[in-house]
Amino acid sequence: MLSKVGTFKFHVESYVCDFTEKATITVMTRFMLDAASKHADQRGFGYEHILKDNVVWVLSRLSIQLDEYPGQNQDLTVETWIETVSKFFTQRCFSFINQSGKIIGYARTIWAAIDMQTRRPIDIPSWRPDMLQYVEDEKQCPIEKMSKIPQIDGIDSSMGYTVRYSDIDINKHVNSIKYMEHAINIFDLNFFTEKIIHKFEIVYLTEGLFGDKLKLYKQNMSENEYIIDTKKGDESICRSRIVWV
Amino acid sequence: MLSKVGTFKFHVESYVCDFTEKATITVMTRFMLDAASKHADQRGFGYEHILKDNVVWVLSRLSIQLDEYPGQNQDLTVETWIETVSKFFTQRCFSFINQSGKIIGYARTIWAAIDMQTRRPIDIPSWRPDMLQYVEDEKQCPIEKMSKIPQIDGIDSSMGYTVRYSDIDINKHVNSIKYMEHAINIFDLNFFTEKIIHKFEIVYLTEGLFGDKLKLYKQNMSENEYIIDTKKGDESICRSRIVWV
Repeated sequence: MLSKVGTFKFHVESYVCDFTEKATITVMTRFMLDAASKHADQRGFGYEHILKDNVVWVLSRLSIQLDEYPGQNQDLTVETWIETVSKFFTQRCFSFINQSGKIIGYARTIWAAIDMQTRRPIDIPSWRPDMLQYVEDEKQCPIEKMSKIPQIDGIDSSMGYTVRYSDIDINKHVNSIKYMEHAINIFDLNFFTEKIIHKFEIVYLTEGLFGDKLKLYKQNMSENEYIIDTKKGDESICRSRIVWV
Repeated sequence: MLSKVGTFKFHVESYVCDFTEKATITVMTRFMLDAASKHADQRGFGYEHILKDNVVWVLSRLSIQLDEYPGQNQDLTVETWIETVSKFFTQRCFSFINQSGKIIGYARTIWAAIDMQTRRPIDIPSWRPDMLQYVEDEKQCPIEKMSKIPQIDGIDSSMGYTVRYSDIDINKHVNSIKYMEHAINIFDLNFFTEKIIHKFEIVYLTEGLFGDKLKLYKQNMSENEYIIDTKKGDESICRSRIVWV
């Protein structure tokens, strides 16, 4: 049996950095989702394996918390492990380790296994009991469990976007990371020069499709905390909480 | 002395692919610009080196032509070399080699060295005569030299974008690859499902800055050929030619 914790190495190329010469939070999220995908592949329950059962993993929630970001040309290690497998959801955690060996952040994700025919979630432990042997219950992920992201009476930020080619993934839905990128783009430049994103939480509620016209609504909850709702008409597609420091 | 031709390896991660599971043309361009940057660094005239003279390399034109795109998890090799160093411009060429060793495409770029104080181009051979020893005059880059991209009477495509955080580079100008991404996003999904971008040419005319509201104008020149003008008011920021097959 492979180890419960998977360890994956990444290199922060210059072209994944922003103007501050640091990796962006969207790139850090790409790295962790790539690590998740490889961890699952190696253990027999990756996308390719479960496609045979007509099942896909769907990301339901994501929370990432970083104290600092790696700079360009630095190495980064991502550790990932499964924290729980319950009836309809599995929780996967991550830690981010910089090239000096210092832990610079953590993340949590919640996934559902969706039957592509019925579009309904599958009972994971009954379907794949072999996953249970990989549940790691000793390693700690010392960031809060994801809290509810409330609905907001946000004023129309007068920002929005139409879903285009560069936004969509293999299933022609909006890529989960692209929602983050558009939500972050709502902020003015001084946020990025004076602060960093310490925490980003997102809950995915329904899917955006090619051509959809999405609107972004923003509400300031406290000095450094914002909720951003991505809506199609009256319906929330996803809701994010961003905390700056 | 290092070899005139630099050879750089890349791996096509799943998260740089589009919904067709192939590398995008913007990612192929990122790879080649990264190869260019490393080639110059290794030979002593990279960004870091010339910053000491208060000089920056500015990409003036780019032409990339691909017969096919590498798929996810495949390896890619990029070769790059200097074709000419003339008074105010240097031309750099590229070839793309897939993991079976087949050449799948070529690219050409034209660069100016700009004095950051005067904002004027520098006489490259007088400033850096050492670059001349790296001019490779045997290796062929069998794609056409870049032709003029004409002004168009394009109809307002009613698309456009405001320059945001994710668009800007270290100098807070729009990243040269982001102009490509936005220009490609003008096309409907059926282009991407039925064709591939065979050729992308872009000429950079002036710089877009954070907050600029840019408009995209499109004109169909022949069945598969389009010109896209990115404008700020009446001024062209850059002009692209896209050829589909």
